[in-house]
Amino acid sequence: MRVKVLGSAAGGGFPQWNCQCPNCSALRNGKLKSRPRTQTQVIFSPDSKVWFLLCASPDLRQQVLAARELSPPENNSSPPPIGGLFLPSADVDSVMGLLHLREFQTFFVFATRGVQCVLQKENRIFRVLERANPPVKWQTLSAKGRLGCHLSEDSSGPADFICTTVPLGGCYPDYVSEETLRAVPPEDASVGLIMEQGEKRLFFAPSLSGSSTMWKSAVESADATFIDGTFWSDDELMRTGRSKKTAREIGHLPLSGAGGLFEQFPRQTKGRKILIHINNTNPILDEKSAEHRAVLDAGFEIAYDGMEFEL
Amino acid sequence: MRVKVLGSAAGGGFPQWNCQCPNCSALRNGKLKSRPRTQTQVIFSPDSKVWFLLCASPDLRQQVLAARELSPPENNSSPPPIGGLFLPSADVDSVMGLLHLREFQTFFVFATRGVQCVLQKENRIFRVLERANPPVKWQTLSAKGRLGCHLSEDSSGPADFICTTVPLGGCYPDYVSEETLRAVPPEDASVGLIMEQGEKRLFFAPSLSGSSTMWKSAVESADATFIDGTFWSDDELMRTGRSKKTAREIGHLPLSGAGGLFEQFPRQTKGRKILIHINNTNPILDEKSAEHRAVLDAGFEIAYDGMEFEL
Repeated sequence: MRVKVLGSAAGGGFPQWNCQCPNCSALRNGKLKSRPRTQTQVIFSPDSKVWFLLCASPDLRQQVLAARELSPPENNSSPPPIGGLFLPSADVDSVMGLLHLREFQTFFVFATRGVQCVLQKENRIFRVLERANPPVKWQTLSAKGRLGCHLSEDSSGPADFICTTVPLGGCYPDYVSEETLRAVPPEDASVGLIMEQGEKRLFFAPSLSGSSTMWKSAVESADATFIDGTFWSDDELMRTGRSKKTAREIGHLPLSGAGGLFEQFPRQTKGRKILIHINNTNPILDEKSAEHRAVLDAGFEIAYDGMEFEL
Repeated sequence: MRVKVLGSAAGGGFPQWNCQCPNCSALRNGKLKSRPRTQTQVIFSPDSKVWFLLCASPDLRQQVLAARELSPPENNSSPPPIGGLFLPSADVDSVMGLLHLREFQTFFVFATRGVQCVLQKENRIFRVLERANPPVKWQTLSAKGRLGCHLSEDSSGPADFICTTVPLGGCYPDYVSEETLRAVPPEDASVGLIMEQGEKRLFFAPSLSGSSTMWKSAVESADATFIDGTFWSDDELMRTGRSKKTAREIGHLPLSGAGGLFEQFPRQTKGRKILIHINNTNPILDEKSAEHRAVLDAGFEIAYDGMEFEL
């Protein structure tokens, strides 16, 4: 399985358009040892021909153009390289990119019933995906289930890979109406995705609320895990003057501190542990910081745009 | 008045993510004398400090980062450079960029009642703009009216510039529900924008349906006009295998042919005439083409990302 990171930042990217926090300011001024990052987007391919997208990032047009793997084939000599997308939630950073993929091509969109309901029932703009002929095909993920996926239209043979979903305990985004919130299953709000091909497993969980611990067993069996690296500390947004809310209040377990990700992360893991969805305020983005060093010393990697590997 | 083009292509940009039309294919292969283009976005400033955005392009994050004028001020030493946005329609390419501007900053969004209704009533995702404190402020444009605008919160003095709207006769996008279509004024669907500061006038009309001719008098009095350069010919999408619809059927007057823009364009104009919202299939993008030459010979310019001037 080929895996590539097209974007590694949290919502807004790094730098963020209107932000002068210490990281964004220093990056703009060329005074930070770091890299710019677009918003979280991972792609994987079971055969290095057909690719599946994890998230639909707001930066998806720019990311697709930068990824040679996703260029359309010359003279329609082979099928389009994008086979489908998996949406872990209905957050703007997970779904906005669907609008970049409007027109002229069908593909699969895998999402829970709750996420589909939010997009289809109260956000008609996503109907532009129906402009393709045939229109985009929605596929339902249960919040906790296994789904066999095929690379070609012919789904009679054995599955090419299996997607297992893990409920992560998050909430629906704040733009969802009360009426819809009453109609959708809470566990559908935010799921982790295990992509399994043969013996290999990739686990993708860019948003960990901390209210569920089911992600831990997924981490233990994964060959590579992309996991929520949004915030270093619970009060990071307050200290950098960006918000009056804590990391936990906006649905992200911080990396450090009591009950944080590092403390909760299973000790016995065999796979790569890669932090992703890194917020512009996070000190780990500064490659000279103590926090950056601490992450590496703890055996974690920090995702960057362009990172790629084979499982 | 300072004016800058941040994006000059039609929906999808150039190249388009999934397109292998002759232009996109040749551009990817380095065989076209042309430039990549992001989706249409123009900014202007009455004082070179506070900027207003015409459209909210899907590429807006990338465009803001590339425009030094829009960088946030060091140490909050001056007001944020983005004062507001003007939305000419509810098309995805005109509004999607609003989602890039979510969080942590207020600004004005100027749009007709019809466009506001489409975004607010049946696309709740745009409520993320309410996360800022204070939230984003919506201002209503009538389809045919004049609105005095101020650079500062204090609106007691004379207006810093005046926005005059011109109904362009277009339709609401296809994602809008029948119920909403019955509730909104048809003339609110698509407006041209005249920005007037002192003696100077900028006219912005990236989408001309051809069903109204009110744009002609705006062109005659403008010092610079950005006008719909989407398609060269009415059957362009069919000939390039992209769609079974004509240019006119999807709401754009083609440049050439009987009744096309060149034929209809007023002969007596004093200002610059700049084609914008150029589709990836348009032969004028090829700087060696006869069509490109014909555009220049007719006294028109072709907008490109980074184009800037003073009025």
